[in-house]
Amino acid sequence: MTITTRAPRRLESYVCGEWTRGAKDGVPLLDAATGDPVALIDATGLDYRAALDWGRDRGGLALRAMTFHERALMLKALGQALMGMKEEFYAESLATGATRADAWIDIEGGIGTLLTFASKARRELPNARVLTDGEVEPLSRDGSFAGQHIYTPLQGIAIHINAYNFPCWGMLEKIGPNLLAGVPCIVKPASQTAYLTELMVRRMIDTGILPEGALQLVSGSAGDMLDHVTGQDAITFTGSAATGRKLKTHPAIVENATRFTMEADSLNASVLGPDAAPGSDEFDLFVKEVAREMTVKAGQKCTAIRRVIAPRAHVDALVAALSDRLGKAALGNPADEGVRMGPLASLDQRDEVRERIAALRADAEIVAGNPDDVRIVSGDAEKGAFLNPVLMYCDTPFAAQAVHDVEAFGPVSTVMPYDTMDEAVELTRRGKGSLVASVFTDDKAVAEEMVIGMAPFHGRVLIGNRRSAKTSTGHGSPLAPLVHGGPGRAGGGEEMGGMRGVKHYMQRTAVQGTPRLLSAVTGRWIEGAEAQQGTHPFRKSLSELQIGDQLVTASRQITQEDVEHFAEFTGDTFYAHMDSDAAAANPFFDDRVAHGYLIASFAAGLFVDPAPGPVLANYGVDNLRFLTPVYFGDTLQVRLTCKEINPRETADHGEVRWDCQVTNQEGAVVAQYDVLTMVAKTWPQA
Amino acid sequence: MTITTRAPRRLESYVCGEWTRGAKDGVPLLDAATGDPVALIDATGLDYRAALDWGRDRGGLALRAMTFHERALMLKALGQALMGMKEEFYAESLATGATRADAWIDIEGGIGTLLTFASKARRELPNARVLTDGEVEPLSRDGSFAGQHIYTPLQGIAIHINAYNFPCWGMLEKIGPNLLAGVPCIVKPASQTAYLTELMVRRMIDTGILPEGALQLVSGSAGDMLDHVTGQDAITFTGSAATGRKLKTHPAIVENATRFTMEADSLNASVLGPDAAPGSDEFDLFVKEVAREMTVKAGQKCTAIRRVIAPRAHVDALVAALSDRLGKAALGNPADEGVRMGPLASLDQRDEVRERIAALRADAEIVAGNPDDVRIVSGDAEKGAFLNPVLMYCDTPFAAQAVHDVEAFGPVSTVMPYDTMDEAVELTRRGKGSLVASVFTDDKAVAEEMVIGMAPFHGRVLIGNRRSAKTSTGHGSPLAPLVHGGPGRAGGGEEMGGMRGVKHYMQRTAVQGTPRLLSAVTGRWIEGAEAQQGTHPFRKSLSELQIGDQLVTASRQITQEDVEHFAEFTGDTFYAHMDSDAAAANPFFDDRVAHGYLIASFAAGLFVDPAPGPVLANYGVDNLRFLTPVYFGDTLQVRLTCKEINPRETADHGEVRWDCQVTNQEGAVVAQYDVLTMVAKTWPQA
Repeated sequence: MTITTRAPRRLESYVCGEWTRGAKDGVPLLDAATGDPVALIDATGLDYRAALDWGRDRGGLALRAMTFHERALMLKALGQALMGMKEEFYAESLATGATRADAWIDIEGGIGTLLTFASKARRELPNARVLTDGEVEPLSRDGSFAGQHIYTPLQGIAIHINAYNFPCWGMLEKIGPNLLAGVPCIVKPASQTAYLTELMVRRMIDTGILPEGALQLVSGSAGDMLDHVTGQDAITFTGSAATGRKLKTHPAIVENATRFTMEADSLNASVLGPDAAPGSDEFDLFVKEVAREMTVKAGQKCTAIRRVIAPRAHVDALVAALSDRLGKAALGNPADEGVRMGPLASLDQRDEVRERIAALRADAEIVAGNPDDVRIVSGDAEKGAFLNPVLMYCDTPFAAQAVHDVEAFGPVSTVMPYDTMDEAVELTRRGKGSLVASVFTDDKAVAEEMVIGMAPFHGRVLIGNRRSAKTSTGHGSPLAPLVHGGPGRAGGGEEMGGMRGVKHYMQRTAVQGTPRLLSAVTGRWIEGAEAQQGTHPFRKSLSELQIGDQLVTASRQITQEDVEHFAEFTGDTFYAHMDSDAAAANPFFDDRVAHGYLIASFAAGLFVDPAPGPVLANYGVDNLRFLTPVYFGDTLQVRLTCKEINPRETADHGEVRWDCQVTNQEGAVVAQYDVLTMVAKTWPQA
Repeated sequence: MTITTRAPRRLESYVCGEWTRGAKDGVPLLDAATGDPVALIDATGLDYRAALDWGRDRGGLALRAMTFHERALMLKALGQALMGMKEEFYAESLATGATRADAWIDIEGGIGTLLTFASKARRELPNARVLTDGEVEPLSRDGSFAGQHIYTPLQGIAIHINAYNFPCWGMLEKIGPNLLAGVPCIVKPASQTAYLTELMVRRMIDTGILPEGALQLVSGSAGDMLDHVTGQDAITFTGSAATGRKLKTHPAIVENATRFTMEADSLNASVLGPDAAPGSDEFDLFVKEVAREMTVKAGQKCTAIRRVIAPRAHVDALVAALSDRLGKAALGNPADEGVRMGPLASLDQRDEVRERIAALRADAEIVAGNPDDVRIVSGDAEKGAFLNPVLMYCDTPFAAQAVHDVEAFGPVSTVMPYDTMDEAVELTRRGKGSLVASVFTDDKAVAEEMVIGMAPFHGRVLIGNRRSAKTSTGHGSPLAPLVHGGPGRAGGGEEMGGMRGVKHYMQRTAVQGTPRLLSAVTGRWIEGAEAQQGTHPFRKSLSELQIGDQLVTASRQITQEDVEHFAEFTGDTFYAHMDSDAAAANPFFDDRVAHGYLIASFAAGLFVDPAPGPVLANYGVDNLRFLTPVYFGDTLQVRLTCKEINPRETADHGEVRWDCQVTNQEGAVVAQYDVLTMVAKTWPQA
């Protein structure tokens, strides 16, 4: 099959391990620029209940059998495979109206998101199936009862209902987290651009990298799918607020308290700081950014700037600069070089944007562009969904309603003036919750006041200035490490945010019990759990080492000579080590004390095993606390216990975390920390 | 006013800074044991919109002006004041049907929760208004653009709609987190026991500890309150699933994506482990726990054990032991000594429980107790809502529906057998999501398999065994440090969980920008932000010290003699420091290297200022990573930068966190960590 020819093809759904056509011929999907039919879509007759069960049973079982690192490597392989085929996706993407630059966000941005998740997961998650959350909570004085929160994968399926504007990224940014969590998914793209999603899913399935059932696709209507959800499923929705609200109140979702993440309308604002006068770098950056946000994807981005908030004194200069820049954006067939902006996704979409512009005119006047007069450099003016950028101006934004309420999902923004910073913040808040806001300033005080003021109403806030001009990813780009979603009108959802997004598909559970059993559940040694002594644990490779392997060292007295010698040797002659009277005047000490670093150094001297062995290096220390002062004559002893073992999938070694407790002659803990080591998988190494 | 006399009093609402009666006379609320009227409740005519605005404006403003520690100290003072008045609450509590032991959970358990939040907040949160979340996310190669997540308080109000069974705890466990977050609240208790909530709110307001608007109370119907919610409000609901679903789909809540946390019906299970045969400690503990959960609060707890899952072989012994124990629970007027179990909250409630028992009989037979034959030791058998414990047995739980679906909110549980551990786990899951499950076992493998299996369907899982018998807080007790809430049928909500619960009332926002401006927003120095040099920063007290104050030290060469001397002195003669060939064979090193602890010790020698001064002690080190090996002849230099300042409210000092970066002669970072110090507020100290 040659996908890139434009003969309409019948899209298929991938469910229960098979590519399936709908029972009907299908509805034609038209090329945004030419109006030619690209594909036919229909999902009539699909057995949605069976598809959900197939995913939960087959996909869930296979994914849950893998560790976080195994799943991450699977995503990495998938992302790399997709990147190798990217030109096929770019070709298919033209029909959506996207220019090459637009498609880059969707295709390479989407694949990059998958790869970022894959690499962050291996850095930030253990190579395990269960994730602990937070510290052990002591629940008894004698240590016999404690609590630990854990995350385990939901036993259901993730259902992603996506918007038409990002057929690739919209899918990939969502499936990355659910697959990492160990949860299968089913993707239902919006029909208008489903042919591109279908192509990408087809290629993903072809690779054979994903276990069967991990990823399914519905090309067409969601039918009765939502009737069959349970409390173990998680639904994400990106699209219009009206549809989102309808889905959110679906009886099965409400009945089962099914997780529902919504990302909907958003009247995102960008503010020109009071310091950013015409002529400043920030003014120029602001103009560039607003124009870019209006024209990229023809403004069809949930994160695009809809409200442009500027100091009243600079409004005229701003409108002039924006009008000038927008006038230069060549509109036309995205396949043509020289075209800077493509058409909207469909003629229906253009009709809707024109209606919204009409609604906005209740509050604002058009100051650049004419929605009814299309000027293109190429493409079919009759059949293509072209619309030139429209800049509006609202002089009384505090009296206005529509400019804060009506989202024209196209190349449309409204400029509005402010007089004080409070007003600027208040105007951003009038959006009643947005995905993102930005402020362009080089002033620390402005940044602080504006960002803190905007934050409660926004999922993301970007500060633009001269120093980050070249490296800033821009107002409109959600990034894998950062949360994406906003409160209130924006839907109240949260996606991505690095490993935060993975946890969205897991259940957090507080586990309580005696340390021995709690440790058996988490696979992590905790204070009070069983420990076994014998061979020095540094003589054990990962293949032999067990959680709870423990060394109790000989003891060592710290003398005045030791402390004075250490002070002289290191140069750390802090008075608390050197001067008895001054030390006693310190609220924490009764007399001269040993250096904390001396305690840790002597501790290492006590626990280290000198000869070559499986422990390759000490690469760090975590959470070191000096809990009791060590006075001259005190005797130290160390208890070192294997706490966590984290083998690497792609190396001959792994990380081992040791609980290190240093006590004095009275048994009081003087220092407590984690020692981090690299340990070989086998010894001698193969 | 003498509250403890039983003449019915007219309850009042506290809104907009005033105690207000409803326009009508009110509905009588009856004593659970005697049927005598206790109070009259009505809220007709309340202006709910004004109340919400009053809280948001007055309360929100005042609370947001405080730091986390100031709010925590406010809660501590409030909790201590309430504890001093506890006997008044105990007296008022009798009318609810609660015995002294029952009331302890509600009153002292509730106040204790407030105090736990107050103390955890001061330990775990900074003394600031904005909370950072996670690490700085690098977003550019050259460090000029980065991201940081922050939490800021919602600008709305928390609305708590509570159940009748815990009139004090149900309020206190919720208001603790929202007040800590800096968000005001309005509490609407269930009418049946609202007199006790009203009394406690009255006493809280009387103390004058809370700022005006921080806490309001509705005694009576919620009226049109929910019509006025925004996307900045947060609603919690505890009660029946039917009511919860209705509220959750309220148009204003859906329209504004208002946060809605629901805690509803839950068919909590407790499992007797396969190892816990009759005669074992765990068997006895299990019998005790099930009986306790059935009789405490007459089984009117969301967390009570409704399903008792036991190995088939032990079912007869279990039913016998439970029947025996339940038979000894003296039912009667809670005011009487010797009474072990009080009445249900009302006659209506008893009718409902009896109906539910009838529904359960579709699947299960009654094996102990008779719902229609009340046997009491005191109280009014006619007017009191008495019901003796009822134990049921379902022999075919996999074929049954009602036992997994019908919650009889009273002293009723159903025993059901299992044959394999898989079956036991599957039976707990049949509850479709519960607040809590427990398993009684002393076997590590059983604990691991059962807990991991149950976790995705539960918000909390307790392991009971002999070792924790004396210290376990029990199956039915939610605890302030642990999350409370469950997926699916249990409502999908999450409350408490220590500081997790505080974040529920805050908005998480990803902030992006250049480090200098990002640092201005978070109040925390980050790599790349401005730094100022001058006076040694260890000479500055908290009153002088600024974020970004920086010391760049002299440099020091590390020699072979240094390393060998340190090895001999500390005893750490690890081969990588001592043996050139062996070191080179190590995958991480090319030759002999310096000890990590030597690097940190020399670094301290470089940055420490020896004379007495405002820096009182180094109490720890965080996130120490050795990033580049240090070879003989390398020269080290330290850059120490003030990163975070955390003054204590109740001491003359505070914590200061320093970014410590050790570089070699090529500028490569060899070690990176945070140094933690105690610093005086003024110097010389006042």
